[in-house]
Amino acid sequence: MPQGQPVAVPDDGLTTRARRNTPVLAVHTGPGKGKSTAAFGMALRAWNAGMSVAVFQFVKSAKWKVGEESAFAALGRLNAEQGLGGAVEWHKMGKGWSWIRQPRKSDSPDDHAIAAADGWTEIAGRLAEQRHDFYVLDEFTYPLKWGWVAVDDVVDVLLNRPGAQHVVITGRDAPQRLIDAADLVTEMRCVKHPMDAGRKGQRGIEW
Amino acid sequence: MPQGQPVAVPDDGLTTRARRNTPVLAVHTGPGKGKSTAAFGMALRAWNAGMSVAVFQFVKSAKWKVGEESAFAALGRLNAEQGLGGAVEWHKMGKGWSWIRQPRKSDSPDDHAIAAADGWTEIAGRLAEQRHDFYVLDEFTYPLKWGWVAVDDVVDVLLNRPGAQHVVITGRDAPQRLIDAADLVTEMRCVKHPMDAGRKGQRGIEW
Repeated sequence: MPQGQPVAVPDDGLTTRARRNTPVLAVHTGPGKGKSTAAFGMALRAWNAGMSVAVFQFVKSAKWKVGEESAFAALGRLNAEQGLGGAVEWHKMGKGWSWIRQPRKSDSPDDHAIAAADGWTEIAGRLAEQRHDFYVLDEFTYPLKWGWVAVDDVVDVLLNRPGAQHVVITGRDAPQRLIDAADLVTEMRCVKHPMDAGRKGQRGIEW
Repeated sequence: MPQGQPVAVPDDGLTTRARRNTPVLAVHTGPGKGKSTAAFGMALRAWNAGMSVAVFQFVKSAKWKVGEESAFAALGRLNAEQGLGGAVEWHKMGKGWSWIRQPRKSDSPDDHAIAAADGWTEIAGRLAEQRHDFYVLDEFTYPLKWGWVAVDDVVDVLLNRPGAQHVVITGRDAPQRLIDAADLVTEMRCVKHPMDAGRKGQRGIEW
């Protein structure tokens, strides 16, 4: 997409340079494909710019998005071994986050709610200490939707995060307060999907 | 996004396995952000699955998407040096495609039209010989829209491409015939954009 000119320059006393360095809160929502994929594409660009990237996947199954995880692991090694790009961390809720010593063994909804809340607490802590430059909170709208994590707390933490930390949140049905707080909101709308024709996901394309 | 079940299994005599290996033609269109970014995210996943990836950018300026280009160059080196992922080729129209010996020096609209047509001719040739597994035709809807490349020819070549070559086409205003031909069409709709508030693009986020 050609880069456009701003439609209006706000009267906020900031220089263009200051505005350029403003951290971005982006939300990819809507029922269509590409919400997470576009977030990982942004993370790839951030990695290339030397930013430290951290992905937090609020998904249950370890089967999802293994392709992205492996690719970012390779990028992380490129950073560690050759100094290219930025550092990469990849955390998924799965049966328990990597930073929690005792992985959860049961699979009850209560545990998922607790795990999601644990995830957000960890992220809020990292934002406070400016641990990373670029955060992907993948599928994070679901714990918000299901009331496992309080939207008001999330919006408050995000709006008051220090420094220049970029955050991208993906998932359907983003709450309105999150949309209001975000700088960039894109809705992915599905016009046509192969699953309509009975196809299942395929390696390299869907995951 | 959780992986759903097909809404219906078509009566086409194919096994699920055969359907899974069906090559995908995807179109990312609409006025919102994330069309190209999601395509590069898919390319990342394809790379990880060991597919040979080729990107063709139908853009004039070399300034665009340098972040993705550098990141994929790094991935291509990982493939060449360590055998990880798939091979990567990245071509951009710019002032003349890399496979054309004499770069164009002028900057007239006629030259862009010719360059776009040259690009498509090259891609059609590569599809015929099954040169790559995964093609990104970035911003390719514009030459179609402007009549520089014939939509009928493109649709015909894409629908009749041999093997299991995946193709993703990005850009606004995808022609209806292309949408009809595609397996997966996603429209990106802009709900809110920082440029509305006078911000300009920033490194690591926009490019």
